[in-house]
Amino acid sequence: MSKGQLIVLSGPSGVGKSSIVKKVMERHPKLRFSVSATTREKRPGEVDGVSYYFVSREAFQTMVERDELLEHAEYVENCYGTPAKPIDEALDLGYDVLLDIEVQGAMQVMERRPEAVTIFIAAPSFAELERRLTGRGDTAPDKIRKRLETARREYTFAPRYDYLVISETGKVEEAADEVLSIIKAAHCRTENRIHYLKEEL
Amino acid sequence: MSKGQLIVLSGPSGVGKSSIVKKVMERHPKLRFSVSATTREKRPGEVDGVSYYFVSREAFQTMVERDELLEHAEYVENCYGTPAKPIDEALDLGYDVLLDIEVQGAMQVMERRPEAVTIFIAAPSFAELERRLTGRGDTAPDKIRKRLETARREYTFAPRYDYLVISETGKVEEAADEVLSIIKAAHCRTENRIHYLKEEL
Repeated sequence: MSKGQLIVLSGPSGVGKSSIVKKVMERHPKLRFSVSATTREKRPGEVDGVSYYFVSREAFQTMVERDELLEHAEYVENCYGTPAKPIDEALDLGYDVLLDIEVQGAMQVMERRPEAVTIFIAAPSFAELERRLTGRGDTAPDKIRKRLETARREYTFAPRYDYLVISETGKVEEAADEVLSIIKAAHCRTENRIHYLKEEL
Repeated sequence: MSKGQLIVLSGPSGVGKSSIVKKVMERHPKLRFSVSATTREKRPGEVDGVSYYFVSREAFQTMVERDELLEHAEYVENCYGTPAKPIDEALDLGYDVLLDIEVQGAMQVMERRPEAVTIFIAAPSFAELERRLTGRGDTAPDKIRKRLETARREYTFAPRYDYLVISETGKVEEAADEVLSIIKAAHCRTENRIHYLKEEL
């Protein structure tokens, strides 16, 4: 059995990333979603240990000190981090593992795991991203402004990702198709398969 | 409209490459198959201008001298070459173009078109490749031996390809799936899409 593939996915708030991830998870039988640890407050509908591990600032700090996180970052005044151990266990079992993390964290993973496949999800335009954030109707204007500022900063990191998927309005299925193809292609990379030819080479 | 993707496919005789290519062509609406020029004899069922452009040694030499070929090579005592012009025209029209060429030619294309996606199709094992070549029943033993020697030499080039697809017996559909995913992923590469973000960056 071959080892799983680590996939890093980033994209600004409002881009439709969670809908894309949902479709991808439905259609990929051996894909696990990495659960992050965070110090931010639980939102309605979120489940501890599924959406995130909701932890205190103190507990988070301890994980950082013990070097148990693959990456960690502060983002909109909260800490987020990715516990490394469950990911490595899943990869060894042949599962692909999807990390949905913001850009600072993604840069750390690229550094520590150069074999990871990295995907940036962008909106068709910035105006469209603004429309989507405003259209939600559940976010205060100053929060929207802050998210747009953050998005603009995040976009500057997009060129460092391997792949760019454009999340067109109403085309979640197409974006999911692209992410699934990127994952399948990653498994076919010569460095992941050259062992098949070891007898012949 | 974005430019098409150039795809280079190689693999030894007997590996099942033509069945895979056939499936890929059926399922990809905007894929064109590059027609090579060759000095080898036409086999039963082959059509000039479709299977190959069957040309004389002299005509082939003229194309080489005029630098009209993207690559050319001598292989089992015949010349093969890829006319560049129809490929560039198709790519500009947004068609993906598939080159089914042997390893010498592929190395030339990698050099001249570093943006090409390169795929090597291998058998699950060398013993299996021998079985497939023998099983055809239409090839003389010395030709089979020569093809196996050629295959062994071709395999040494496999590590230089971007992707390795294993052509498992009876699994043409799966191999075609992989090739199609590799092509779709290539379109998502950040360098091919970064223009979408040019306003934002």
